[in-house]
Amino acid sequence: MSALTEMGKRAKEAAVVLATLPSPRKNKALLASADALLAAEKEILAANAADVAAAEAAGVKGAFIDRLTLTVKRLAEMADGLRQVAALDDPVGEMLSMKTLDNGLIIGQKRVPMGVIGIIFEARPNVAADAFGLCLKAGSAAILRGGKEAFGTNQAVVAALRGALAAEGLPEDCVQMVPDISRETANEMMRLNGYLDVLIPRGGAGLIRSVVENSTVPVIQTGVGNCHIYVDESADLEKAVRIVLNAKTQRPGVCNACESLLVHEAVAEKFLPAVGAALREKKVEIRGDEQTLALIQDAVPATEEDWATEYEDLILSARVVRDFDEAAAHIRRYSTGHSEAIITENYTNAQRFLNEVDAAAVYVNASTRFTDGGQFGFGAEIGISTQKLHARGPMGLKEMTTTKYIIYGSGQIRE
Amino acid sequence: MSALTEMGKRAKEAAVVLATLPSPRKNKALLASADALLAAEKEILAANAADVAAAEAAGVKGAFIDRLTLTVKRLAEMADGLRQVAALDDPVGEMLSMKTLDNGLIIGQKRVPMGVIGIIFEARPNVAADAFGLCLKAGSAAILRGGKEAFGTNQAVVAALRGALAAEGLPEDCVQMVPDISRETANEMMRLNGYLDVLIPRGGAGLIRSVVENSTVPVIQTGVGNCHIYVDESADLEKAVRIVLNAKTQRPGVCNACESLLVHEAVAEKFLPAVGAALREKKVEIRGDEQTLALIQDAVPATEEDWATEYEDLILSARVVRDFDEAAAHIRRYSTGHSEAIITENYTNAQRFLNEVDAAAVYVNASTRFTDGGQFGFGAEIGISTQKLHARGPMGLKEMTTTKYIIYGSGQIRE
Repeated sequence: MSALTEMGKRAKEAAVVLATLPSPRKNKALLASADALLAAEKEILAANAADVAAAEAAGVKGAFIDRLTLTVKRLAEMADGLRQVAALDDPVGEMLSMKTLDNGLIIGQKRVPMGVIGIIFEARPNVAADAFGLCLKAGSAAILRGGKEAFGTNQAVVAALRGALAAEGLPEDCVQMVPDISRETANEMMRLNGYLDVLIPRGGAGLIRSVVENSTVPVIQTGVGNCHIYVDESADLEKAVRIVLNAKTQRPGVCNACESLLVHEAVAEKFLPAVGAALREKKVEIRGDEQTLALIQDAVPATEEDWATEYEDLILSARVVRDFDEAAAHIRRYSTGHSEAIITENYTNAQRFLNEVDAAAVYVNASTRFTDGGQFGFGAEIGISTQKLHARGPMGLKEMTTTKYIIYGSGQIRE
Repeated sequence: MSALTEMGKRAKEAAVVLATLPSPRKNKALLASADALLAAEKEILAANAADVAAAEAAGVKGAFIDRLTLTVKRLAEMADGLRQVAALDDPVGEMLSMKTLDNGLIIGQKRVPMGVIGIIFEARPNVAADAFGLCLKAGSAAILRGGKEAFGTNQAVVAALRGALAAEGLPEDCVQMVPDISRETANEMMRLNGYLDVLIPRGGAGLIRSVVENSTVPVIQTGVGNCHIYVDESADLEKAVRIVLNAKTQRPGVCNACESLLVHEAVAEKFLPAVGAALREKKVEIRGDEQTLALIQDAVPATEEDWATEYEDLILSARVVRDFDEAAAHIRRYSTGHSEAIITENYTNAQRFLNEVDAAAVYVNASTRFTDGGQFGFGAEIGISTQKLHARGPMGLKEMTTTKYIIYGSGQIRE
C-alpha cells in the first residue's frame, strides 16, 4: 500500500468520525485550532522565513514572494478565519425535502458530509488553514497538497492543526498533508478514487488545467474569469464609468475583475473617451479594436489573443459592438463562464442578458467584483466554481456537502 | 476541426436555442418526437432486425440479444416514454432563492439548463430516445454514443427524432449521434471539454470504469450496486423474509437488487433456514460464510470475492455478524454506496443505520428495489448516481440542470 493510499485510508476513518460529529464539537475544535495556530506562531513564522529565503535564493520574484510570506498579522487573520467558520451555520443534517409516498414509505433528502476532500493549491499558505476549517465544518476530512515553495510553512501549519485536533479528542487525520511535493505524488492524489470523494484545485489556470486533465477523482473547477462588461446603448454612462473602474481596478489580480469591455456603437463616442480618462488615472492599459483606438488616444491595438486573456493586471481589452446581439455573441465566444455584466437602462435588454448569458453570475448595473462567497452572504468560500456540475459560482459550506436519501419503511416491497 | 468538435460546436448552437425555449414548445417537440418514432416503425424495426442478425452471427448470446431487440411493443413504450417526459414539470427557470443584500443588490439562484450533455450507453436502444427526451426537457442538447451492436438501430431512432425537431422548427442538432463507434471516437468524446458540459455513462461496471478513467469532461457515475440487507437482532423476521425475497428476486438483473445478506447471530438460527427455504423456491443460489453453511443446507461457501460482487443474477452472498457494528463495518468495506437496508424493530439501530451508513439511499424496513426515479416520484430518471458530486441517487430532470446567479443592481460597486 502506497503512502498516499495509507493516507486515504486514514482520512476515510477520520471521516467516519466527522460524519456524525455534533456541531458544538466541530466548532470547539475550530476555535482550538485557531488558538493552536497562534500558539505555534514562532514555529510557523520560522518555517515560513526559511521557505521565503529558499524561494528568493531560487530567484522567485516579487508578487509571488508576497503571497508566500506570512507575518504576525497574516497568521492572526488565518486564526480569525477559523473562528469565523466556527460561527457559521452547520450545513450538515439539513433536510432538503421529506414526503410520504402512496405506499407509506417516508422519503427524505438529507444534507450529509462529502467524506474526504482533496485540495491542491499554490503558494498562499493561508489556504491550508482555510481549507481545513471549511472541510471540518462541512464534516469532511481534508488531504492537502500545497505549493512546493510553501512546503515547510504548510507542514508547520498542519502540525499545529493536528495537535489541536488530538487535544480535542478528534482524529488527527481529519487533516493530512501529502508527504512530498513531487509530481508523482500529485498524480497519485489525482487518481485516488475510492478514497478521495472530490478534488478542488485552487490556483492559476495552469494548475487547474493540469488537475482537470489528469484527475480521475471528480474535480470541481474553480477560478478562471475572463469577465466582460457590456455598456448598452441606453446605459447611464456615469454609472457605467464608475462600475468599469471598480471592476477593473479595485483589485485587478482576482478572478472576478473585469478583463474586457464591450461598448454599443451608439454611445462609444461619448463613453470611451470618458472611461479612457478615468482608467488612465488608474494606470490601466487599454487594448482596443480600431474604433476604440480612434476614441482613446493612448490605447494600443488588441490582438485576437487579447479577447481570450484573463490579465489579472491593470490591462483591459475594449471593443465597440453594433448591438446587443454582437455583444452577446462576443461573450458567448470568449467568456469563461465566471461573471458577466450589462450596464443598461433598457428593461428588455437587462432581462435578455440575465436569461441568455451563460455564466455562474450575470449582473445588471453592478460590478463583477461582487462574485464572492463573502459578498453573497455565504460567510466563507472554498473557491468560485466555473463549471456546471454540483456547484456554480461561489462555493460555501453547503457546496462542500452532498446528500443522501433516507427512507423510513414499514415492510414495503416492490410489486 | 475534427468531426466530433464540429458536432460539439453544433450542439452548443442548438443549446443556445434550447436554453430559453418555453416549456410548451419543448413539450410539443417531445410529442412530435413520439409520433415520429411510431411513424418510422418500419425503418427502425428493419434496422434493428439487421443489428440483431449481425450480433447473432457474431455469436452474441441470449440476454444481450433480448436487450438489443426492439418490437412493436417496445417501440410504442419508447414513444410513451417521450410523452411521459412531456407531461413532467419543467425544471428550468425555478428560482431556488432570492434575497436582497444590505447594499441593495438583489441576488437570485436560478435553475438553468446544463448546455450539452453526452450519454455513452450500451445495448438497449431505448436509451437513445429516453436520454434525448430528458435532455430536451431539461433544455440541453444531447450527444449520444450507443453500443456498437445497436448502431444501425440508434441511427434510425435518431433520424426520426431529428426529423421531428426540424418539423417543429427546432435545431436538429438538439440530438446528435457520434459518426462511428470506434474507440478513438469514444475517447475523443470523453475529452471534448469546452463543448460537453457533462458525460453520463449508462451501462455495466466496465463501461463506467472506462469513462471515469479516461474522461476529462465531468462525469456523473451511475449504477453499480452491491446492495446489502442487514437483518438486526430485533427484526420482524416475517417482514425480513418478505423484503429479502423481494429485493433479491423481484428483478435480479438491476442495480438496486440485493446482493448480500447480513444476519445478526442472535436470529441466525431462526431466520436463515426460513429465508433459505423461500430463496430456494425462487432458485436463488446462496454463497455463505461458515455459520450460514451450517444453517442453509444447499448453500455453497462464499469467497472473499463474493462479498464485493454485484451478481445481477439469482445469487446472494450471506454472512452472520456479531452485532450492528460488525454489519456496519462490513457494509462500509464492501458497499458501492448505492442502496443499503436494515430490518429492525429497534429504534436506535434504525436511526444509527440511517445516520452512519454512507450510501445514496438508506432504508429501514423496506426493499432496496425502491431506489428508482419513478418510485421516488421524479417521473423519469437518466440513471442512479452512486457518486457524491452534483447528484446522488436517482437522477431526474432537476439533476440534469445547473444553476446560475442572477443579480439585479442599481449601480453598486465594491468598496
